[in-house]
Parts: sequence; C-alpha cells; structure tokens
Amino acid sequence: MTSKELFQQIQQKKSFLCIGLDPDIEKIPKHLLELEDPIFEFNKQIIESTKDLCVAYKPNIAFYESMGTKGWESLRKTLEIIPKEIFTIADAKRGDIGNTSNMYAKTFFQTMDFDSVTVAPYMGSDSVKPFLSFDQKWVILLALTSNQGGLDFQLFENKEGEKLYQKVLKESQSWGENLMYVVGATRADALTDVRKIVPNHFLLIPGVGAQGGSLQEVCKYGLNKECGLLINSSRGIIYAGDKEDFAQQSRVKALELQSEMELILQKNFA
Amino acid sequence: MTSKELFQQIQQKKSFLCIGLDPDIEKIPKHLLELEDPIFEFNKQIIESTKDLCVAYKPNIAFYESMGTKGWESLRKTLEIIPKEIFTIADAKRGDIGNTSNMYAKTFFQTMDFDSVTVAPYMGSDSVKPFLSFDQKWVILLALTSNQGGLDFQLFENKEGEKLYQKVLKESQSWGENLMYVVGATRADALTDVRKIVPNHFLLIPGVGAQGGSLQEVCKYGLNKECGLLINSSRGIIYAGDKEDFAQQSRVKALELQSEMELILQKNFA
Repeated sequence: MTSKELFQQIQQKKSFLCIGLDPDIEKIPKHLLELEDPIFEFNKQIIESTKDLCVAYKPNIAFYESMGTKGWESLRKTLEIIPKEIFTIADAKRGDIGNTSNMYAKTFFQTMDFDSVTVAPYMGSDSVKPFLSFDQKWVILLALTSNQGGLDFQLFENKEGEKLYQKVLKESQSWGENLMYVVGATRADALTDVRKIVPNHFLLIPGVGAQGGSLQEVCKYGLNKECGLLINSSRGIIYAGDKEDFAQQSRVKALELQSEMELILQKNFA
Repeated sequence: MTSKELFQQIQQKKSFLCIGLDPDIEKIPKHLLELEDPIFEFNKQIIESTKDLCVAYKPNIAFYESMGTKGWESLRKTLEIIPKEIFTIADAKRGDIGNTSNMYAKTFFQTMDFDSVTVAPYMGSDSVKPFLSFDQKWVILLALTSNQGGLDFQLFENKEGEKLYQKVLKESQSWGENLMYVVGATRADALTDVRKIVPNHFLLIPGVGAQGGSLQEVCKYGLNKECGLLINSSRGIIYAGDKEDFAQQSRVKALELQSEMELILQKNFA
C-alpha cells in the first residue's frame, strides 16, 4: 500500500483508527473457549464488527507467539480475513544483524503478507534496511514509545542537546522511503519536535485509551497535510465487553473514537 | 541454570563455546531436503556431533519464524533434544511494553523452556523486567552489537562522555539479578570499558568467525574470574560442509575453537 492510498482510505472512512489485536486467552470472553480456535474466533468477530470504522489492524505478535504453533495459525487465519484495503501492521519490534533482519522481513512480508512491521532501532541502519527492500511494504520504527521505561534511554541527550529519539528520526530518514515512526500518545508534548524532523511521515500513535493518552492533544500537534497519523487503541476496544455481545461492545468503543476522528478530519481537511 | 552451574560446565567441558543454530533452508545440505523436517534433521546432526564441545546453543528465532508454523515446530523439537546441562539461548531480540514483554517471556520460558532470551533495551526498564521475573531464567541484553550499524546509536554520547551502551550497562544492573550482555567480538577494544561497568556478568560475544572478531583479543579483555564469556559462532560452524558429512565438518570447526578455548582456560584457571 502507498501512503497516498492510506490517506484515501482515511478520507473515505473518516477515520485514522488502528485497532490493536492483542488477544489474550485469559481475557477473551469465556464462551469462546469451547471453540476450536478461540483466538481466531475472537479476532474474526472484532474485525467483522469494526472493519468499517478503522483503516488499520495491528496484531501484537507476542500474543500469538506465546501460544506456540497454534497461535501462529490463529494469526495466519486472522490476516486472511482482514479486507485488502485495510493496512496491516505486524507489531513485532524486531531488529537484528542484516542476514537475520532479512529473515524477519521474509516472515512478515512473504510467509505472511503484512503491509508493515514495527522495528526497534538499537542495532542501527543495517538492522533496519533489509525490511525496506520490499516493494510497498513499510517499516514502522520505534522513536519515542508510550511506556514509562521509554524515558530511560530515548531521552538520552548529547552535548548539542539532541536526544536519542531525535537522532533516530533524523538518521533513519536516509535509510529508505517507506518509513513510519512510533510515537506514544503519552508524549504529545514532544510531537511538535517530532514534526519538525519528520513533517511528512506517518506516525503510529499507541497509548490512547488504556495508557492514558489524549486524542485531541495528539492531533493538535501531530496532524500533517495528509493526516499522517494512525491512532492505535487495543485493550480499550477489544476488551470492551466479555459477554456474547463483546464484538458489539467493541464497535461502540471504536465508533466513539471514529466519531471524534471524523470531526477532526472535517475541521482539518474540509 | 545458575551462573555457577554454567561456570562448572565451562570447566568440565573446557569450553565456553556457544553454537548458533541459524538453519537456512537455502544453505543446508541438499540431501536433507527430501526429509520431512529438514531443519530439525540438520540441527539434530549438528547437535549430536558438537554437544560435547560447547556449553550453549543459540537458536536464532528469525530463521524458524520465517518458515511459519513448520519452523516453530522444528524449533520446539530441536529444543527437546538439547541435553539439559547445556545452556539454551533464544536469540530473539524482543522487547515491548510490560504486558507484551510478559507475553514474550511466556513464549520462551513457559511455552518453550529456554534458559535465556536476548532482549533489546530501547524501550527501557519496564520492557525488560518482565523477563527477569522467572526463576533461573536469564535476560541477555543488547549492549554493543557486532554489526556496522551498531555504531549508529550505541556510541551516542552525552555531555559527560558517557555512551549509550555504557548507560544501558549501568542502568540495567538495578533491574534484576539474572542479566547477561551482548558485546560483539568486533568491539574487543571496548571490552575493557565494558568490564569496568559489569565486572561479574556473563557476556555473550557474537562475531567471532564470519564477522571477523578475534577470540584471543576478546579473551584478553573480557575474561573474568568465572570465565564470564560465552563465545558464539554460527555460520562458521554449522555451514562448514554441505555434503553428507556436514556434521563432521562442523565438529572439526567447533573443535578448533574448543581447543583454543581449552588452552585459554588452562592458562587462566589452572
């Protein structure tokens, strides 16, 4: 998918919502547990009831991996039922030396057919570039993350006052075209700085909802001329209910966010 | 496994060799491809012919993951045939927000029974701590990696002259007991600095062999009073041959390294 196509989807659906598919066997509704593949069934119902409200789905790979081969099978089946026009993000936080990163890229772009994968920058350029050699596939590089520990190293600062996450944003731009960045919603105050360095890139913003970030704040400082934001909510949407109507409850939560986004888009892209 | 037990193994086997199990379907001997699970068969023969020469095996998770569910099955079977006294490392370079890191920890410490997992530090303390809450399981945290791109951010320096990898080494020590660190063999010149910060921790040293690092240099600056080093070689050992005798060829290469290590151990722990 191109970024232009992504922006078109955003305009058509009046939404820049990304839904995180983090299915935890201990949290999904109990009535699903008797089915053969409860995780897939959970995702399927969530997708069916929210696919008109979001432009991206982000399966968190840890949740599938932790279930062994069965989990990977649930993931594969989930990916197959996501409509083709919806952007898919393998939230995997991978990154290793070149020949290994190439294997990870094959996993998510060939063995599976994700549009993008999240990558950690610690190992530098040659750990990220292998992911950037696939046509119309995207790297979403960690810059400033939403968790408390994100502050431990990402704000590390050189004598010119440049912070590590700023250096990551600057350096990585020369590595390839198809880059997006992760910036936590809990760091809205830093978005002005982020936008100075990457005015045109899409940002994936986790942390709205369960982690406490504000959609209005994020949009105020983060929107660009092609929207440039994918706002993720995971737990706030997928665990809205735990009864047989859980998928409808998820729809209610997704609709709340989408409605708010529709107003924001109207105001900014009328 | 405790670090004391690991040192005992090192003394018994006269080796601190770790063998990286990075089986690439395009590189393994052709005659294996007709078997039902060529990757497992490859690993099995390598393990059988080298298990008396090494104290650790390090499957590189990317290589299994890239083959989908079949690859995870090969990994599971491989782990089962590694003798219990040999330290196992899931080379996965994981790390995410707390609840997700907890899922990754479950993957490698519960769903599978690895002794340790490699973790990337970019997301900070709360992304690493979940891995440290398992009894006798280890985090091997990336500090200074062997690849060229490792220099992009790991040497980023604050106004006091402290480098990012040094900060990672310092801060992380307070996160838990069972920590080891990755320091590339290609950075032997930095090992003196590393040992000033972490005199007692085990270091996992990749980059000897295919990547050009020197075993003698690494030992000169990296050994501590309980050896404190696991030297990894992957491609240099497992792809030593590509015919039916590949496992014997691997043994020859492993034996070369083990013999050199035996001399070093004699000299330092006589």
